Amino acid sequence: MDRQNLTLLTDLYELTMMQGYFKHKDRNETVIFDAFYRNNPCDGGYAIAAGLEQLVKYIKDLHFSDHDIRYLSDLGIFDADFLDYLADFRFSGDIYAIPEGTVIFPREPLVKVIAPIMEAQLVETAILNIINHQSLIATKAARVCYAAKGDGIMEFGLRRAQGPDAGIYGARAAMIGGCIGTSNVLCGQLFDVPVKGTHAHSWIMSFPDEYTAFKTYADLYPTACILLVDTYDTLKSGVPNAIRVFQEMRAAGVPLTFYGIRLDSGDLAYLSKKARRMLDEAGFPDAVISASNDLDEYLIESLKAQGAAITSWGVGTNLITAKDNPAFGGVYKLAAVMGEDGSFIPKIKLSENSEKVTNPGNKKIYRVYEKETGKIKADLICLVDESFREDKPLLLFDPSEPWKKTKLPAGSFTLRELLVPVFKDGKCCYESPRVMDIRSYCMKEQDTLWDETKRFVNPHQVYVDLSRKLYDTKIELLDQMS
Amino acid sequence: MDRQNLTLLTDLYELTMMQGYFKHKDRNETVIFDAFYRNNPCDGGYAIAAGLEQLVKYIKDLHFSDHDIRYLSDLGIFDADFLDYLADFRFSGDIYAIPEGTVIFPREPLVKVIAPIMEAQLVETAILNIINHQSLIATKAARVCYAAKGDGIMEFGLRRAQGPDAGIYGARAAMIGGCIGTSNVLCGQLFDVPVKGTHAHSWIMSFPDEYTAFKTYADLYPTACILLVDTYDTLKSGVPNAIRVFQEMRAAGVPLTFYGIRLDSGDLAYLSKKARRMLDEAGFPDAVISASNDLDEYLIESLKAQGAAITSWGVGTNLITAKDNPAFGGVYKLAAVMGEDGSFIPKIKLSENSEKVTNPGNKKIYRVYEKETGKIKADLICLVDESFREDKPLLLFDPSEPWKKTKLPAGSFTLRELLVPVFKDGKCCYESPRVMDIRSYCMKEQDTLWDETKRFVNPHQVYVDLSRKLYDTKIELLDQMS
Repeated sequence: MDRQNLTLLTDLYELTMMQGYFKHKDRNETVIFDAFYRNNPCDGGYAIAAGLEQLVKYIKDLHFSDHDIRYLSDLGIFDADFLDYLADFRFSGDIYAIPEGTVIFPREPLVKVIAPIMEAQLVETAILNIINHQSLIATKAARVCYAAKGDGIMEFGLRRAQGPDAGIYGARAAMIGGCIGTSNVLCGQLFDVPVKGTHAHSWIMSFPDEYTAFKTYADLYPTACILLVDTYDTLKSGVPNAIRVFQEMRAAGVPLTFYGIRLDSGDLAYLSKKARRMLDEAGFPDAVISASNDLDEYLIESLKAQGAAITSWGVGTNLITAKDNPAFGGVYKLAAVMGEDGSFIPKIKLSENSEKVTNPGNKKIYRVYEKETGKIKADLICLVDESFREDKPLLLFDPSEPWKKTKLPAGSFTLRELLVPVFKDGKCCYESPRVMDIRSYCMKEQDTLWDETKRFVNPHQVYVDLSRKLYDTKIELLDQMS
Repeated sequence: MDRQNLTLLTDLYELTMMQGYFKHKDRNETVIFDAFYRNNPCDGGYAIAAGLEQLVKYIKDLHFSDHDIRYLSDLGIFDADFLDYLADFRFSGDIYAIPEGTVIFPREPLVKVIAPIMEAQLVETAILNIINHQSLIATKAARVCYAAKGDGIMEFGLRRAQGPDAGIYGARAAMIGGCIGTSNVLCGQLFDVPVKGTHAHSWIMSFPDEYTAFKTYADLYPTACILLVDTYDTLKSGVPNAIRVFQEMRAAGVPLTFYGIRLDSGDLAYLSKKARRMLDEAGFPDAVISASNDLDEYLIESLKAQGAAITSWGVGTNLITAKDNPAFGGVYKLAAVMGEDGSFIPKIKLSENSEKVTNPGNKKIYRVYEKETGKIKADLICLVDESFREDKPLLLFDPSEPWKKTKLPAGSFTLRELLVPVFKDGKCCYESPRVMDIRSYCMKEQDTLWDETKRFVNPHQVYVDLSRKLYDTKIELLDQMS
């Protein structure tokens, strides 16, 4: 993705609409689009924002090459004057976004684009593609890491990812969500994240016997010696051969720093407990037992509950594809159109499903933290010209049940604005942190959630409230339209 | 993906194993690996092979740049002599593959790599990544197209795809599977496939009213005028406004060639029937009714069964992610190792699950067609030195129930070998067809399946048999190991 011009990574209708706006130049007014999502992945209580670094690169690189213009011309639906315009196209608008690694909730604008409608429309598809994908995998990774209760999670799903980018950027997002490393070497190179891995069954099979394969591996990599023990028979062959090799290493004076076994099939609860006892009895209580094989957050939680003696987990397919929920569902909706006087006229999208009615206007988001605990109390979406203060009481109400009100006393909460400027007048004003720094930030972000919101079954849903002014604006627009 | 060096798109363990083989040069013998899958996606009766063109590019481009070597060196686990070897690395082996668009079944080698083990090991991850992804989406597309019974299916899932490549190569695979077009402009440019699309709700919302939005669109694109009618109220506003615009076009003498409406929400069965009647009564019986909104093969089949008046379908999320089955599950297993005399010694991977036991040896696949109908009778996996003839009777038996035998009389069947040479001694000897030609071939391939195999519920599973010689080899190896 990095070195490819992604300007044509868009739906054709963005371009047909652009030409429509071009032909009616009075219609190229400045507008506001919000990218947001409606439901947390996997019926969870939160999501993790990710993908902003790639979104920034995409916007910076936006331009139609001669080759692109020729291709569009050959389609026979675009006129010469519009193609001339495209040849000089650059993004000239403003973009605000919630930083990567932040905990997010449904209906909050994750990305806000303020630009002439032709530009704002063009970027819809790529913005959604990038943000939907990485936010999905970062969220899934956070869930898997939560289940592991502090054990390390390794991402190694590249072979099952939906194409190279899904492997590369999926691993990036998995690191942001909390993984301790990835098997994906290209991801490691591009984003300076730890890469890890040992050997496959084919290594064992290419030797005359399992012991020789283990021994050869241990000689080569004595300081990170995790042996895969399930090629022939885990308890009868694999673990005894591994113990024999560890004993020989010890006898030879090789320091056993990081060593152990990996289980990749069978009943992981049973096998890990048996293997733990065998390793302990042989004098290797600090040998690591790691496991893989179609793991996800539910299976890890269950294995933990069963007392499995596993402290290191490799997660592939189910993480890199978010298998039980492989699409994030982010959408990009028109929120306002600039009027002749330069102020924004809020716009609303109706729907028969009241949850799908959009929030109109030029908005910002306050995150409200409980001062005593540092946990999130609620989020408050309001219009940009509103402001709230920590030294005044804050009245919150549920927009779907507006009679339900909560008054927070002055001094009992702290406020933080979530959307930060990323582009101003087409110029990037945001520097993406390193992935490992985003990961550290994301760990702290997850600490602002109560366990009740992080659990998998019926999690507590954090309130995302509207300010009174935004709520009234929305109701007024709904009244006008019905 | 095209312009990026994907050599490091691999799991770290491929490189650590490579160094192991390098350090024990006697272990760099020539081996055979098979890529195959175990279960048809979505509990179906078949899959579609796809991704070979990208696999070929990947193998051709394989090389470690100076930048790559420096990165690997910095990891601190690779020695200078091995890094020197990598700097000169090129793929020198043979690859055989089943051509893209071919109908495939579980346990058949889709890709067979014959190469020194260091090379064969390195390419595992990327081969699986590419083939797994595209075969998955091509299969899903074939299913969706089958449900539509000849109606056109448009792919437009880019915004929900798992990153840019998943959108680009997913759309490519969807075209192979049978879609008539994609919304993805970059895919259209790269692979010369039809791109399609009209307008979004935001087009309607940016105008003062729906009629003006439709009218403006129809003036711009009179020859492909599909109007999205559900922004406000489909039957009370959208369809009447569309009819008004079509009447004005007709009155103005604009030829109505390809025109109609798109439904994107609500009860598609009910709304399409109502809209059909309104369009017919207004004198537009040839107006197209297209539909979108979370469609998949099951929903399209149900809508067809309900008599929905829809003849054109747009499928997004559920196709581009293969939502109900987002991973193909292809694996890459060692099948043979070259002995000192230059002949291959078959290797087998055991498993507690007998279905997971691999087929050993250097293999090829015959597809057996019933001569009278041209439909697939069975596939026959055998060793490369075996041959079968159409003018002799053919005895087939089920490897899981070897007493079940079928004898095909001479002349009643035709045979075709499925694996074709792609690389010989590291040189590519295969030219990928154009995507639209692969699509035509894939349509014919799907015609070789009975409806009983294409149906969604409990499809008939096509027999994938082993030759007697391969079966005996397998049993002998199993006996030796137990």
